[in-house]
Amino acid sequence: MRHPFPCPLRWSDMDAHGHVNNAVYLRYLEEARIDFLARLAREECPGAFTGGSVVARHEIDYLRPLTFRHEPVIVELWVTELKVASATFAYEITDAEAAADAMPYVRASTVFVPYDLERGRPRRITAEERSFLKGYADDSHRG
Amino acid sequence: MRHPFPCPLRWSDMDAHGHVNNAVYLRYLEEARIDFLARLAREECPGAFTGGSVVARHEIDYLRPLTFRHEPVIVELWVTELKVASATFAYEITDAEAAADAMPYVRASTVFVPYDLERGRPRRITAEERSFLKGYADDSHRG
Amino acid sequence: MRHPFPCPLRWSDMDAHGHVNNAVYLRYLEEARIDFLARLAREECPGAFTGGSVVARHEIDYLRPLTFRHEPVIVELWVTELKVASATFAYEITDAEAAADAMPYVRASTVFVPYDLERGRPRRITAEERSFLKGYADDSHRG
Amino acid sequence: MRHPFPCPLRWSDMDAHGHVNNAVYLRYLEEARIDFLARLAREECPGAFTGGSVVARHEIDYLRPLTFRHEPVIVELWVTELKVASATFAYEITDAEAAADAMPYVRASTVFVPYDLERGRPRRITAEERSFLKGYADDSHRG
Repeated sequence: MRHPFPCPLRWSDMDAHGHVNNAVYLRYLEEARIDFLARLAREECPGAFTGGSVVARHEIDYLRPLTFRHEPVIVELWVTELKVASATFAYEITDAEAAADAMPYVRASTVFVPYDLERGRPRRITAEERSFLKGYADDSHRG
Repeated sequence: MRHPFPCPLRWSDMDAHGHVNNAVYLRYLEEARIDFLARLAREECPGAFTGGSVVARHEIDYLRPLTFRHEPVIVELWVTELKVASATFAYEITDAEAAADAMPYVRASTVFVPYDLERGRPRRITAEERSFLKGYADDSHRG
Repeated sequence: MRHPFPCPLRWSDMDAHGHVNNAVYLRYLEEARIDFLARLAREECPGAFTGGSVVARHEIDYLRPLTFRHEPVIVELWVTELKVASATFAYEITDAEAAADAMPYVRASTVFVPYDLERGRPRRITAEERSFLKGYADDSHRG
Repeated sequence: MRHPFPCPLRWSDMDAHGHVNNAVYLRYLEEARIDFLARLAREECPGAFTGGSVVARHEIDYLRPLTFRHEPVIVELWVTELKVASATFAYEITDAEAAADAMPYVRASTVFVPYDLERGRPRRITAEERSFLKGYADDSHRG
């Protein structure tokens, strides 16, 4: 299962070339991640992913340019790897009504590390968090 | 040879966690790239890299957090791969007086594609551009 | 009549103090203005406000702090002054279900100048544009 | 006396019109204010302006457009009003070697309120802070 997050663009996301700037897409991924971890996960298991987290790595491929429009893009987010103290999220940024074989604007992945802010160090993923994340394991489209 | 670009931070680069946000580092890489391609390259060969370019891919590893300070960080940029119509840049973001074995804040790479804006498609790297880029080939630290 | 624009926040709109940064509100005003001029106005009179425009002045009062939440804020926009070659917009940023006497987060105004990009100079507001703008004259709450 | 702050531009400060976006200038003012309050003031009186502050109001006039260049702009900052619990700063954004009668890019002012973050309310300006701010009183150019 993928988590589809409708992400509105802002006119100012475009740079002087008139396209959404490459750095701005990381904001879109961030918004999707926050919706996933700070809203959706906590609806299912209160207390999940509190205490902070750290982005350890991003990979991002820019496949098609995007210009400002009033309709949101859809950031699809799913889980491709689940370790003791980190998870890897994958994303595709597409249109709401995209055909199944349509090229996404962006494909990306993030290595995500839950963090114990009080102790100042990474922490293990809890059993409840792991169960939630497993529900979004999906690599059916990635190969 | 690496191109060292001193990149001043802005207070607003920090997010609500009090650290430079992961998306902002792509701005730092962009500033270094623009200094390299739109200033330095054109000093050596006028007309280089005009007509636009596209970022096809980033990889970025976040190794240490960074908080606002008045001293710039140094974005070191060098060339790790040179193809017919694309180049790969690597970067390390460090302190100005970093010890040789100091951990950088960030390691990253970008696949860069020169673009013919008039024709709306990628173009070959010219001989002059290739010669310039070869001067910054350096993978001595990357492995 | 006021134009109410629902403006989603982004987590990254917050600065290191954990509040939406003062500069970011100008982005919210910009989004409302673009929705008003580039979408709404053109539905009523095609061709309105094409060719560019310039912001000549902002005034902005910060009345209450705002932190990230999943619900959009509402940017209410209306017209307070209409001259030959400029218009003044006023704004209040509020909650969707705000009580009539609730303090807005922000009150602001913008002097807006339509621009003839080809000739590189300000231009007159057309009769059609003027008629559209008059429909949003509202200073009933401002005094 | 005015405090001159050299503020480097970033290429991404430009929007799709190819000019520095109107919201970005508030970042430039913020950088100048932070340099003034968090660096300069504390060199003269340690402990000044710690504990936070709030921007209560901005006025900003856009006089000339600015495009990206490698040379910083100069943000001149001075104090135009000093009350018990607030101060007003004025600014002009100019070139480093601007002629005395050159039009600045921007003129602006900010009402600034020192804040007691622990008590969650504004606080008085201390005698030491007042003395520091008086050294930057300058309204000779303002009309």
